[in-house]
Amino acid sequence: MGRMASYRRDLAVRASVDQGLLSAAEPVVALLDTAGIRASAAALTSAFAAVTDAHVLHAFAVKAAPLVPVLRLLHDAGLGVEVASPGELALARAAGIPPTHTVLDSPAKTPAELRQALALGIAVNADNLQELDRLDALVASAPTASPLGLRVNPQVGAGSIGALSTATATSKFGVALRDEGARAGVVQAYLDRPWLTRLHTHTGSQGVPLALMAEGVGEAYALAEEINHKAGRQQIDTLDIGGGLPVNFASDEETPTYAEYARLLADTAPGLLDGRYRLVTEFGRSLLAKHGTVLARVEYTKTSGGRPIAVTHAGVQVATRTVYAPDSWPLQILPYDSEGRPRAGDVTVQDVAGPACFAGDLLATGRELPLLHPGDVVAVPDTGAYYFAHHYAYNSLPRPGIHGFTVADDGAVTFSTVRRAQTLDEIVAEAGGAQPDALVG
Amino acid sequence: MGRMASYRRDLAVRASVDQGLLSAAEPVVALLDTAGIRASAAALTSAFAAVTDAHVLHAFAVKAAPLVPVLRLLHDAGLGVEVASPGELALARAAGIPPTHTVLDSPAKTPAELRQALALGIAVNADNLQELDRLDALVASAPTASPLGLRVNPQVGAGSIGALSTATATSKFGVALRDEGARAGVVQAYLDRPWLTRLHTHTGSQGVPLALMAEGVGEAYALAEEINHKAGRQQIDTLDIGGGLPVNFASDEETPTYAEYARLLADTAPGLLDGRYRLVTEFGRSLLAKHGTVLARVEYTKTSGGRPIAVTHAGVQVATRTVYAPDSWPLQILPYDSEGRPRAGDVTVQDVAGPACFAGDLLATGRELPLLHPGDVVAVPDTGAYYFAHHYAYNSLPRPGIHGFTVADDGAVTFSTVRRAQTLDEIVAEAGGAQPDALVG
Repeated sequence: MGRMASYRRDLAVRASVDQGLLSAAEPVVALLDTAGIRASAAALTSAFAAVTDAHVLHAFAVKAAPLVPVLRLLHDAGLGVEVASPGELALARAAGIPPTHTVLDSPAKTPAELRQALALGIAVNADNLQELDRLDALVASAPTASPLGLRVNPQVGAGSIGALSTATATSKFGVALRDEGARAGVVQAYLDRPWLTRLHTHTGSQGVPLALMAEGVGEAYALAEEINHKAGRQQIDTLDIGGGLPVNFASDEETPTYAEYARLLADTAPGLLDGRYRLVTEFGRSLLAKHGTVLARVEYTKTSGGRPIAVTHAGVQVATRTVYAPDSWPLQILPYDSEGRPRAGDVTVQDVAGPACFAGDLLATGRELPLLHPGDVVAVPDTGAYYFAHHYAYNSLPRPGIHGFTVADDGAVTFSTVRRAQTLDEIVAEAGGAQPDALVG
Repeated sequence: MGRMASYRRDLAVRASVDQGLLSAAEPVVALLDTAGIRASAAALTSAFAAVTDAHVLHAFAVKAAPLVPVLRLLHDAGLGVEVASPGELALARAAGIPPTHTVLDSPAKTPAELRQALALGIAVNADNLQELDRLDALVASAPTASPLGLRVNPQVGAGSIGALSTATATSKFGVALRDEGARAGVVQAYLDRPWLTRLHTHTGSQGVPLALMAEGVGEAYALAEEINHKAGRQQIDTLDIGGGLPVNFASDEETPTYAEYARLLADTAPGLLDGRYRLVTEFGRSLLAKHGTVLARVEYTKTSGGRPIAVTHAGVQVATRTVYAPDSWPLQILPYDSEGRPRAGDVTVQDVAGPACFAGDLLATGRELPLLHPGDVVAVPDTGAYYFAHHYAYNSLPRPGIHGFTVADDGAVTFSTVRRAQTLDEIVAEAGGAQPDALVG
């Protein structure tokens, strides 16, 4: 699939130039490979179908790609959504996702958010015992169709990126299961609340080894078994095992696969998949990352300290994590010429910079690439999740346009606008342009 | 001044709760201290007036606080603006800043941006020799009132934050003066272009010692003298010395001061200030940082791994740099109770988390604070530059409202909205809500 995807990407880069999507006037755009997204959704669904007959709702973590057309596409492919804020819920509703396919998580839900979710019948995972207390009051005050659960932190440990390791000893998420008295408290919370029918955990994500993720799921499964045993009935009918399959940012290869993870789960916790529990997953990055590409024109090239630097229009505004934490989030750089044809040939060690006015605004440093020239096109693959859809308003740079693409059998590329580029008028409006005298009144 | 500012801040926090700015429905807001901004602008102006009679344009770096009412306030206080993108120029124009008070920098200016600036008569600093070639063509094709300059990198070295050190050996900014042949090339570029009348450098910012900044300015001054000597006339009439006074993020003390820096410049390069050169400065962070405060309600409190954690509504969306690079960008946390009164008393080591769904979304870790409770207010001071005005669209969290405030002699606080909070409809619109079927057509 990697080769097919790169073939489609090459065609899309060329077509972006030919069709004027990328131009001197709009020197940075983002692309989404519709076929690639469908393929990942299908791979996820079939991976779990291969190891269990249980009902599985694959709830896409909206935060990974908060774009209404993406949610609609995934829904069309049979997936649901996991939302973690009022804004994400609004996107899900705008995409037409039914409440039965929607799960609300987040560590900071307000009473109003909880009330809305219960009124809509959306599944809710409480993050902590204080939130359970709030749910007590809401459940008592009005009937709800919402399945309700609690998130636990199995505290199995961290992966290679601390900021994304959710199951550390002091993680802010869920009830820390190994803290003194915590496990007993969680069991009692279930025994006290017959309406608490789900258990949620999430050990990911990027940088967390599959075995650690599976271990976290195994801990949650064991806890569910314990609670159901103590309750004397299957009170917990659904396990929400979270998401977090790591993404390979080093090449086009899609590894690890959903199939590997599903088989590992089957080995680690066979009882989880024997049909007694319905399952919810919450994959995000792994469904979208490899299907997004940022394209940017090279504006200038120069040499500093003997090192060639290509100054492009893609920087911190679309690659915030990479610019601020480059060691954790390295990205590939794919060079194309000014007509969108792949550049090959002798390589030179170069920096690839963004347009922003601070020294660290670099997409890549010391990278071996064919020498870039002004007007060339730089493609940044693997940016479909947590990059261009998460605009960072630095230097008042506009949100770039995002375009989905499909490739016909004859190689013809068709684009469809997911989000148009932000205008200068919109930038001014966001910056208090309607009340210029607010501070000099 | 620190004490006065904290007095005003305490009153504003209390009034934010009393007047309903901060509420369960809008659990995060940002405040700007109008009197504090005016005081910093006055301190900058008087610091340079004390060491030179030369004409000085203090051009506020718009990127530090890209808000139209802030630009208008600074203009009212006698400052100009430095813009580094079409969006920033649009903000300056919306604020009514005249072209004579506007300077355009940026490492990635397009031909269209240059053409617009020259048509408006805005000062432009070219970043590199390729850009000078573009200016050759534009200057030849139409007369312009724009003063034109070139940015050089004195390569004097880095401060403690690499990402903000603009004068390193391999910085992406300006012409690297110590590279082989570079200095001679710059001199010749001036001799070839009689319309090139400015020289620009910038060594900052945060983490860069004053002495290193002054050294960089001294190098630029020496180069200007050399060029003017070789030209046999004062071709360079203006030195743009950039900005970059570091900000103290550890306490309310405003240190170092503009006065210290101005005196250091007078010692380092006395000829710079003797009246032969007009000056431009480009301070940003130091003018605004200490006058902005984020307020957030504590939604839940919990314990994980034995450590108390307060989950608030301010996280990566308003404190992007701190969350992604906490070691470089630590922030103070000021605790208030649910009515906005300062919390004092015994302290406990706590984490203060944001609302976003990744483990690293923390404002502070292991911080000694009075134990926080749900409903408490957490204030994050020193966030007037590069924080809440630079929204990062993570978890589809809304841009918070920003309110300027003034405090009357009787302690009464008056708020004025700089930017209202983003609505859910606006979030959906930004996420392709108008074309939900773009990818399933």
